[in-house]
Amino acid sequence: MGRTCEVRLLEVLRTKSREGTERREEELKVRGGGTESEARLLSARKKRYLFTSQNESELIDHAGLDSVVYIRIYLLGLKIFVPIALLAFTVLLPVNYTDRNFDILITKVEDLTFSQIDKFSISNVPSGSKRLFVHIFMAYVFTFWTCYMLYREYKIVTDMRLHFLATEKRRPDQFTVLVRNIPPDVDESVSEYVEHFFRVNHPDQYLLHQVVYNANKLAKIVTQKKDLRNRLVYYSNKYERRPNRRPTTKAGFWGLWGKTIDAIDYYSAEIEKLSNKEVEERERVIGDPKAVVPAAFVSFKSRWGAAVCAQTQQTRNPTHWITDWAPEPRDVYWDNLSMPFMELNIRRVLMAGAFIGLTFFFMIPIAFVQTLANIESIEKVVPFLKPIIDGGTMKPIIQGFLPGIVLKIFLILLPMILMEMSKIEGYFTISTLESRAAGKFHLFLLVNVFLGSIVTGTVLQQIQVFLKESPSEIPKIASVAIPMKATFFITYIMVDGWAGIAAEILKVVPLIIFHLKNIFLVKTEIDREEATDQGSLLWATYEPRMQLYFLLGLVYSTVTPILLPFIIVFFAFAYLVFRHQVINVYDQKYESAASYWPDVHRRIIIGLMISQILLLGLLSTKQALHSTPFMLVLPVLTFLFHRYCKSRFESAFRKFPLQDAMIKDTLENAREPHLNLRTYLRGAYIHPVFKGLELDTSMDVYEDDNPVVATTRRSHKGSSGELSSILVV
Amino acid sequence: MGRTCEVRLLEVLRTKSREGTERREEELKVRGGGTESEARLLSARKKRYLFTSQNESELIDHAGLDSVVYIRIYLLGLKIFVPIALLAFTVLLPVNYTDRNFDILITKVEDLTFSQIDKFSISNVPSGSKRLFVHIFMAYVFTFWTCYMLYREYKIVTDMRLHFLATEKRRPDQFTVLVRNIPPDVDESVSEYVEHFFRVNHPDQYLLHQVVYNANKLAKIVTQKKDLRNRLVYYSNKYERRPNRRPTTKAGFWGLWGKTIDAIDYYSAEIEKLSNKEVEERERVIGDPKAVVPAAFVSFKSRWGAAVCAQTQQTRNPTHWITDWAPEPRDVYWDNLSMPFMELNIRRVLMAGAFIGLTFFFMIPIAFVQTLANIESIEKVVPFLKPIIDGGTMKPIIQGFLPGIVLKIFLILLPMILMEMSKIEGYFTISTLESRAAGKFHLFLLVNVFLGSIVTGTVLQQIQVFLKESPSEIPKIASVAIPMKATFFITYIMVDGWAGIAAEILKVVPLIIFHLKNIFLVKTEIDREEATDQGSLLWATYEPRMQLYFLLGLVYSTVTPILLPFIIVFFAFAYLVFRHQVINVYDQKYESAASYWPDVHRRIIIGLMISQILLLGLLSTKQALHSTPFMLVLPVLTFLFHRYCKSRFESAFRKFPLQDAMIKDTLENAREPHLNLRTYLRGAYIHPVFKGLELDTSMDVYEDDNPVVATTRRSHKGSSGELSSILVV
Repeated sequence: MGRTCEVRLLEVLRTKSREGTERREEELKVRGGGTESEARLLSARKKRYLFTSQNESELIDHAGLDSVVYIRIYLLGLKIFVPIALLAFTVLLPVNYTDRNFDILITKVEDLTFSQIDKFSISNVPSGSKRLFVHIFMAYVFTFWTCYMLYREYKIVTDMRLHFLATEKRRPDQFTVLVRNIPPDVDESVSEYVEHFFRVNHPDQYLLHQVVYNANKLAKIVTQKKDLRNRLVYYSNKYERRPNRRPTTKAGFWGLWGKTIDAIDYYSAEIEKLSNKEVEERERVIGDPKAVVPAAFVSFKSRWGAAVCAQTQQTRNPTHWITDWAPEPRDVYWDNLSMPFMELNIRRVLMAGAFIGLTFFFMIPIAFVQTLANIESIEKVVPFLKPIIDGGTMKPIIQGFLPGIVLKIFLILLPMILMEMSKIEGYFTISTLESRAAGKFHLFLLVNVFLGSIVTGTVLQQIQVFLKESPSEIPKIASVAIPMKATFFITYIMVDGWAGIAAEILKVVPLIIFHLKNIFLVKTEIDREEATDQGSLLWATYEPRMQLYFLLGLVYSTVTPILLPFIIVFFAFAYLVFRHQVINVYDQKYESAASYWPDVHRRIIIGLMISQILLLGLLSTKQALHSTPFMLVLPVLTFLFHRYCKSRFESAFRKFPLQDAMIKDTLENAREPHLNLRTYLRGAYIHPVFKGLELDTSMDVYEDDNPVVATTRRSHKGSSGELSSILVV
Repeated sequence: MGRTCEVRLLEVLRTKSREGTERREEELKVRGGGTESEARLLSARKKRYLFTSQNESELIDHAGLDSVVYIRIYLLGLKIFVPIALLAFTVLLPVNYTDRNFDILITKVEDLTFSQIDKFSISNVPSGSKRLFVHIFMAYVFTFWTCYMLYREYKIVTDMRLHFLATEKRRPDQFTVLVRNIPPDVDESVSEYVEHFFRVNHPDQYLLHQVVYNANKLAKIVTQKKDLRNRLVYYSNKYERRPNRRPTTKAGFWGLWGKTIDAIDYYSAEIEKLSNKEVEERERVIGDPKAVVPAAFVSFKSRWGAAVCAQTQQTRNPTHWITDWAPEPRDVYWDNLSMPFMELNIRRVLMAGAFIGLTFFFMIPIAFVQTLANIESIEKVVPFLKPIIDGGTMKPIIQGFLPGIVLKIFLILLPMILMEMSKIEGYFTISTLESRAAGKFHLFLLVNVFLGSIVTGTVLQQIQVFLKESPSEIPKIASVAIPMKATFFITYIMVDGWAGIAAEILKVVPLIIFHLKNIFLVKTEIDREEATDQGSLLWATYEPRMQLYFLLGLVYSTVTPILLPFIIVFFAFAYLVFRHQVINVYDQKYESAASYWPDVHRRIIIGLMISQILLLGLLSTKQALHSTPFMLVLPVLTFLFHRYCKSRFESAFRKFPLQDAMIKDTLENAREPHLNLRTYLRGAYIHPVFKGLELDTSMDVYEDDNPVVATTRRSHKGSSGELSSILVV
């Protein structure tokens, strides 16, 4: 060991130069720490400073990497679409506008009318025109530019993530692995079994572990108690203000009816009762082996040990002893930790079915919106509304905004449903739950908002179109409608995008909710503080919506470039607003170090490929069949680009390299040779309900340094079958 | 460490009972070992014994797990198809035969003729008949049975593999990891860099490493020299037999022309020259740092260490320091070890394109075969052949066998081309090369033999069918043709399947080649020995072909069950023949411990899903549209079954669990505490060209126990950028 230390120190010396600056920063921070009020003042100053400065690393310190990278997505939108718009306006608009497809058409069919926007779109170029090659060329240029920007951004975000992980302070999750699906053992408790298993299979690295309790019932009691205590405080305050009258309440439901009783006495008694119940339940949870779920947080002596355990398979049966990096303590979704492997699979299959059902049955209201958008059909159906609609300025408003608004109300409710579905699927971190919900929402928007708006009709008609038509016909059908839908989507961008961001900065919905709460529910200071909670970034709602604008921008970049400025305004506006929100409003719920970036990248690539296939369909309807090979190459190249990016960058978001772990371990050993990791890690992964109560957690952490744990395994003389069944699994 | 030993020994005790029997076997083997001739006699006796007995474990000892599991695939075919055939004959045949679709048709159209086979097929059931529900029900039963057998077999093979790996003797690859894409370093050689990297990042486990030389040129010289030496031996023998005449040869190409010279002197001189050249080249390879490719075999102190390194990511850049389990030394394909990451990607993309091209252009001859199969069209085109064809027994022979034979000749050449394509793709083990070639061949057979025989026409027509028709039309088009093609496929099974196996047992082709060689090329005993090489199992040829019979059996099980006995005869015959070949003929080239099983499983599942989709198409043409939902569920369920099997079993074929590694390590430590692994592993992964020459390999293995290797890295004062670039990569 002594000799290898030399080698390690050599390595440390080699990394020193790189780490030097970071260490200096850390030291500065330590020196700069004063009283708490000072720190608050500093942070307030910093906030103001940040909003004006461009310093990204300070922003990361303040708001976390997740938020900073989230803002970068909007910036990426600008980086992609501003050059594309400039090129499209200088090249494509003149090409489209100077052609004369509509002139011919109008002379042919008298009553056919086109809006002014169509004059600037590809529709103005007649079939079989040589000018269509300009569009193909521009499709290549736009694809190249988008891919280049995506590659650059993936590289930057990967570097940011790796740098963030390398420089972040010591955190419990760096040393910890979450083990799930621990098989049942006849002789040993879960805790003993985990201890034995890791002492044997990771002998030099295992440090301690923490079992997971199924404390859902206890958590409920604690919440109940907190509520009652709050009421008691409220009535005590009331009594203090007017000592001559003891406050009263009613014994029935929510204090609304029943016998009138003394409030302070009543609530004191109730709290007393609940406290007893809580102690009882807590003892039951700790004492009952059935309350321990077959999952545990296992901590190691070094980051290297944790990295090894998280990336390797433990036993022959891959459905037992599943190891993953432990999430940050705040990121754990405790309710889902106990699910067995088979149940997880079945749940996921069922939820996939439910999601497909949801996606297709939501189409009915969307189709209804589509018919509303055509105001003439309303007038036909409900003729008595005709004078109201026609009279005055109502008609354009209804025609323009109604489809967007009705859609919007649906879409506000949807993310919550999708989040619940993801919870049923059994993911155990909040970040995964959000990313799964975002994935579902993205697919939903793609099918229902984008395709649903283009291929109109009833649900069954749409499904029939996709089944009955040949694969080469579907893009044609969709693409013919695309130039015609430009006006609709411009309206949609304004109603959903612009207005949505305006609502976000004004925080309209939270404001209304806050005032409602303030009037009806707030009783004490604690309540008011809770009601003023500013919330956090709703990733699962915002990211898929933003992806829709990427998709629209990419699809219309070659077809109707006049739509691009609306997209650019959206991205610029959103960038400013969310930057402000992230700095001044949101509280960070958890930090995943931008682990969502591969999803963002993939979805933009999907948008790009959809745009290419739709252009291919559009060109083939324009009798430009000789262009098909050129256009077929494009999605293939895009897909290969995606594969390359995946193999090059994605592992940085999924795995933790051993070299990085080793460097961090060695540096820490050199700086703090006498660090007691055991005390640092003890209690890091305790269910929040125990943490709140400051429970003595030593009962499930083996503190003594004696690694031999007395086995409770009975000696099965002659019963080798049972023994081997434990080992073979 | 002392304390953890106790725990480990506890674990050992727990495993003892299981391992006990195995150890006893090993001991028996050690005791049983006598002289070499005795061993040979024993093995000969064992061979005869094996062919009659059913003992699988002895067969594994003798022929390796790969071969034994390969035979099991044929057995699996029997297990799947015998019960299916019994059920189909008792249920489906009567249902089909007692219906009267053809009676109606024949009364309608007078000149329409059907073969007797069609009376037993689904074609005999008229459209819209209620009897079709029997077919749907049977499809469910057959699917369930096939999946059940597949699941059972996957479980058995997994257990066999795990047991094989757990009980196999100490082998170098258990301790070794292959590292590829070592990034270039300005200061250190590859060997030093590898040494430093693993000493730092796997400090407790690293033992030694072996760099890989690009010795392709040297290997060529060695082969040349061997050939010359062989000729010298031949002429020396000749001279000994007739000492009065010194043998002569000609100086020109292959000794065919040129000046007549003394053969013994000439070849002695040539060998002398080549030896000098070889020494020169060997020194160049060893001395020249450019001859070292950026790959190395790194060995660890324990199996646990190797398992950890193989499964984890080493550095931030996932395209550098790629670690995989080292293949068996005989399994290494040395030429491909040096390929950089980007080049690999580009090669694979190009080969994918080439393969698609090959698949579609091979369709031209296949289509030609299809027109040949229709003898009437030949008579029309070449009327003067009519008397020959019609006269006598020629007509059925041509009609029946010609398509099969022409196809066969193409298919014999194809696997070699596909193997070369896989080599270009850059895989570095022979087993992977074979599995990749098999995958390509399987796709090729699927598209060209199966689909190509069903959807006849020119290449372009076929592609147009797939592009122009709707997704729901394609299975309809294919499935209408399926009952009609039953006769063709029965012929194909007999010509390709039965006759192919007969040729295999007779070894017709090798026999011809051997006699040709014996006459023209064999000059010495060494030559004759080489010519009598019995070869090994041609996995890449046989497995995809067998998959075609699985596919045919599954497709026709519900459509024309009369085909099933032909399939069963094929599997039974093949089982007997290959069992014999494996025991008595083949030499095993390498042992992959049945790592190919996930491929076999996946391909049978693909066949099952194709059969379901084709039946769905067939039923929808029979106006049984109400049955569509029932039939749509079936492929979805099959796919879910496949996903489940994958998650449950596949990791056993890809990863090596830490628990198994630890058990083996602990047992070995207990049995042989003083084992010197360093001497055992040294030279295990030396390029065969050095091995043949008994090169002193210590020059690239650090033998001393001092782990500090003097770094040749210059101290870059102030040049921190370069330093960090090494670390950041």
